[in-house]
Formats: sequence, structure tokens, C-alpha cells
Amino acid sequence: METIDVALGTDSYPIHVTQEGSNWTESLVSRLNGRSPIILTNPKVKRQCLPTLSKGLTGAELSPKTVLIPDGEQYKNLTTVTKVYRHLLKLGADRTTPIILLGGGVVGDLGGFAVATFLRGLRFIHVATTLVAQVDSSIGGKLGVDLPEGKNLVGVFRQPQAVFCHIPFLNTLPQRELVGGLGEVIKYGVIEDPQLLEIISARRDDILRGNTELLFEIVRRSAAIKARVVSADEKESSLRRILNFGHTFGHAIERLTRYRKYHHGEAIGIGMLIAAKLSHLFGYCSQEEALKLSKVIQEAGLPTEIPRFTVNQWKQSLEVDKKAQDGMIHFVFIKRIGEVSVQPTHPAQLIKRLTTLL
Amino acid sequence: METIDVALGTDSYPIHVTQEGSNWTESLVSRLNGRSPIILTNPKVKRQCLPTLSKGLTGAELSPKTVLIPDGEQYKNLTTVTKVYRHLLKLGADRTTPIILLGGGVVGDLGGFAVATFLRGLRFIHVATTLVAQVDSSIGGKLGVDLPEGKNLVGVFRQPQAVFCHIPFLNTLPQRELVGGLGEVIKYGVIEDPQLLEIISARRDDILRGNTELLFEIVRRSAAIKARVVSADEKESSLRRILNFGHTFGHAIERLTRYRKYHHGEAIGIGMLIAAKLSHLFGYCSQEEALKLSKVIQEAGLPTEIPRFTVNQWKQSLEVDKKAQDGMIHFVFIKRIGEVSVQPTHPAQLIKRLTTLL
Repeated sequence: METIDVALGTDSYPIHVTQEGSNWTESLVSRLNGRSPIILTNPKVKRQCLPTLSKGLTGAELSPKTVLIPDGEQYKNLTTVTKVYRHLLKLGADRTTPIILLGGGVVGDLGGFAVATFLRGLRFIHVATTLVAQVDSSIGGKLGVDLPEGKNLVGVFRQPQAVFCHIPFLNTLPQRELVGGLGEVIKYGVIEDPQLLEIISARRDDILRGNTELLFEIVRRSAAIKARVVSADEKESSLRRILNFGHTFGHAIERLTRYRKYHHGEAIGIGMLIAAKLSHLFGYCSQEEALKLSKVIQEAGLPTEIPRFTVNQWKQSLEVDKKAQDGMIHFVFIKRIGEVSVQPTHPAQLIKRLTTLL
Repeated sequence: METIDVALGTDSYPIHVTQEGSNWTESLVSRLNGRSPIILTNPKVKRQCLPTLSKGLTGAELSPKTVLIPDGEQYKNLTTVTKVYRHLLKLGADRTTPIILLGGGVVGDLGGFAVATFLRGLRFIHVATTLVAQVDSSIGGKLGVDLPEGKNLVGVFRQPQAVFCHIPFLNTLPQRELVGGLGEVIKYGVIEDPQLLEIISARRDDILRGNTELLFEIVRRSAAIKARVVSADEKESSLRRILNFGHTFGHAIERLTRYRKYHHGEAIGIGMLIAAKLSHLFGYCSQEEALKLSKVIQEAGLPTEIPRFTVNQWKQSLEVDKKAQDGMIHFVFIKRIGEVSVQPTHPAQLIKRLTTLL
């Protein structure tokens, strides 16, 4: 078990990255003060990962209850949140009931938002079961749901009590989801840790075959970067913006394809590809650096073709970016692999250069 | 203008209690950094109070936009919140847009919750226009909406940037609403400031005729108590519980009459009456102290008859109290006027004694 600290004063918490045979459930039980938790999860994760967790809890004579959240981004809305509230009321949850969020991005984001706003906020623990959740979404306290107008437009910042990243859970993932998760891992490589890209280039097949040592290494390194950035800037007023590398166009692509065609990590892969090319066109990095990144994205098995949208479609989609301020986007450019630079940029400037790529 | 500070570290803020002729709108404008705000309000307050505020804003060359929230507790739900989100999107609100919540409890609680969860949280300023809002709901960062199962079951803690209590706005209130507000004022008298009760007893008619000096004095004293309690215990883990004096049965009465028969302050008045009698029956205070309180409640013009519900109705209604922990309620007993004591108490014990009063 490796433990990484997110240092946020009284809101600090540990991220535990664990392997088969570790006593992670004991560590989790020790945080429940002898109280039976309510577990928020989805039907698939319930089948695949809940038994391991339940064994640990019942072994400690706790009787967990379960609230199911339907799987898929299309359910990440206020209607589902309302159902979760009413289910929690039926189960008799009060302000001191321990909550475990067992799952990936939707369970963590939506379930987290529901419990952070139920009775003005219960405390919760993430048990992240997907690669995206282990390296990204479970760390940093961003919780929320979508509106028809865009993703994550509603939400709060609220930190978990702890995050558990149990590596063997990643073996339950379909290949495509694991590849998608590598999109976020590549992001960490670009912003701070070039070795992550080398590991992916060199050992891609072993990673996708579920080599738990390699996955442990990838998660450990990525989570450490996220923890450090969040510790320095919890509410995304400056440094944390670097984590949006690839996300400006990634989110636009997800919006323009109505969240149906691409998994999040795939869209981010294309978003990083666009960001790399724009970084070169804007003169922030050499063509060589941009090509290095394109190569790794391709080697990871992520899509590399920029979808064909009209200039107007790109424009409208960038304009609803919730990170925009006074019409400017804090765009993350590459300087070289391992170093990025955030620049307030007008969407029109980005799109003008983008058209030269299409 | 009197300024009271709510001391919460980096979340600290001032409460400005102001009279006719004060330059409060200038003070408000100075917090907007030259940006035009979005004002959340309701149709009635828009007619009665917005002109005063707008004059100050347009005088500073700002162009405020308005989002209307329907008036009434029956609209304090997630459906209305969703409409507010979508309206904010249409108006092009971003994370830095200044928000003003102009109104009473529903605008403050619901509007506050909407903006505190929109794009993971915008900052906002309360301009409280009712007595309940000026002495209670606008101070302390409790924001939220109701579920069909109960009041304020969904919400967050998030402190405003500033609170403005402009006393002349109270002259726009119907008599019944002003009397209801006195319910909360009496609460502060009981928990800490017996002089408040003396003012109400002696000057009730002048207060209800809208004597702004008396209203200024009442708001100033009440807001100061609320500010001090919230500063000591923002998240209601201990001291802040004293503010629930009269609210356990007050909320139960509101629930049992479906929020239709009584205004909030009226229900709290009856709740305080019950709490006073129970305090005597449980041996916490003399009968004389309990009678003193009943007398003031009556003098204020609040209802004093305990509504007739069955034991089962009381029981079920107390059990959904969101402040319950492990089935126990932190009940606020009177020791004497000016001093209360919070005791974890089982609802069944309370109801058993209550039946002797009916």
C-alpha cells in the first residue's frame, strides 16, 4: 500500500493505492467509527467490486446498505440526484452516516454531489474502481452533475475523507475504458512527468493485459501529481488550471457528439492532440515536442483523428466552457513534454488556428 | 450604518444594518469591482425594493440583470433551482459574475443554493428585505431547498461576501410577516439578550407601526447574536444548536400543517411556547420563567394555541428532523430567559411530556 497525502489543512486526506493482499478494507473500516455505511454504486460495479468490499465490512460486523445509481453519463443529472436524496431518506441516513462512493466518474461526481448537499453535507470516502477515477476524478473534491447545456455545470467543491485506489479493480474494466483512462495518465505525463509517457510507449500491451505492477506505478505517479496540484490550489484559481490540459477541446468534442461517440479519455486524447498542434502554431513549443505527444496518444490506442465540425460548431461549443471568464479561456499550451503554460486566450483565436489543421 | 462582523477566517464578512439616507448602495457597489451584477429576487420585492437598489447601481454606471424566483415556500424546490441555473446560463453568467440575492428567506435560501452550486459556486451578497432574513436567514451561510419529505433537506454551507439589512425595506412588509419575524427576535432574547423581550413587551405597537429606530435596534441586537454564534461554530457542531430554540416543534408544526397554516415565525412562536413548558416539566427552569416567555409571545401578537395533533403525528414528524443523530434530538431547553441548555433527548420522551400539556 502506498499512501499519498492531499494537504489541505483541516480538509486533508490520504489516497491509498493498494494491491491484492493488502489490508485496505481494514484501513477503510477504521474510518467508520463502528458505524455501518451506506454504499453508493452502480449495478455493474456492485457485481464486480462490491463483494470484496462487503467481505471486509461484514467481517468487521458492519451491515452496509446500498443505493444504486444508473451507469452512464446520460444519468448524471438532477433527476438522478433527487432519487438518491429520497433513497437516503428512506434508509434513514442522518448527518453522521458514513458514505462510501464505490465506482468511477459518475458514481463519484453525482453520488458525491448528492451526499455533499444532502442535509447540508455528509462526509464520504471514495473507493475508485476505474482508471479515470483512480488517477483523476476521485481526487480533489470536484463534485457535480450535467445540465442539458453542458457537462458539470452544477456542482460543489468538497473533499473526501479518504480515497482508496485498489489496483486489482482495474482488471474488471473493458479494454476501451482502460485505454480511455490512459488519456488522463498521458495528461499528467505532459504537464509534469515525462516518464509516464515512456512507460506507456514501452509497455502499452502489458498495461492493457492488466499487469498490476505497471498499473500500480501509473496510478501512483498520476495520483501524486494530482494531489500536489490540488494541495496547492484547491479551488482552481491558478495552478490547478494546468489539469485542464487537453480538456478545452476534449469537452467541446464531447458536447458536439452529445457524449455518445467518445469516452471521456478518448475525447481528451483528441483534445491533447489539438492542444499540442496549437501549442506549436502559437509558437509555444517545437514541432518535435508536439509530434512526440501525438505518437504516445496513438501508441496508447486512443483515436487521433480530429472530428469534422464547422467553425460555428466549434465556436458555440467553446463558448459554453464553464471555465471562461469575460469570454476568455485559460488555455493550457505545451512548452515541452513535462512543462505547460496557461494563457488567457480568446476562443476565436484558437478556432482560427484550428481551421488550418482541418 | 452599523457594521457587525462575522469572523470566519478567510470567509469573514460584514453585516451592514442601515437607515434611510445612509450610503449603503455605495458600499455595495464598492464590492462589485466595476462589474454589473445579476440580481435574484421575486416579483413583489422587485416592485417594492429593487428601484432603490437599481438607482444605486445605475448611478455607478452598472447595468444589473434580474432573475425572478416565484414567491412562496411551495416553490423552494429543485425544479425552481434548475430554472435558475438555466436562466443564469442564458444571461451568460460566469464564475466571476457578482450575484445579489434581494429578498427574504426563499430568495436567500434557494437563490443562494442555486448560485453556490452553479459552476461549482459563484460569490454572492445578501440584501435582506424581511425581518426574518435580516435577523436570521441571511446570516450564517445556510442555503438550501425543500424535498417533499421535509424542509431544507438539501443544501450547503456557504458564506456570503456581505449582508445588507436596510431597515426601511421592513416598511414594505405586511403586518403578519413583521409579527412572524418577531418570533425569531424573541428567540435571540431567550438565548442571550433578555432586553430584546423587554423592548417587544414595552413597544410592540410602535414596532408594528414601523418605527425604524426600534426596528434598527431589534435587528442590530439580533444580528449581533447570530454573528457571534456562527463565528464560533460555522457548521453547527455544538454552540450553533442553541439557535434551534423553538425550532424542533416549530418545524414539526409546519410539516404537519404542510407549510400552509402558519408563517415560519408563527410556528416558531408555538414551538418556543412548547419548549418553555417542556423546560419546566423536565425541571430545567421555573414555571415563572416559562410563563414570562409565554407572555411575550402573546404580546408580540403571535399565536399561542398548541395545535391538536395525535401522538403518532407528532412522533412521525419529529423523527424526520434532519438534526437528529442516532435517533436523538439536540433539544434546546430554557434555564432562564437569557440562558439555554442543549440536551440530547429522545423524541418519545418529549412527546410523553407534551401529551400532559394537550
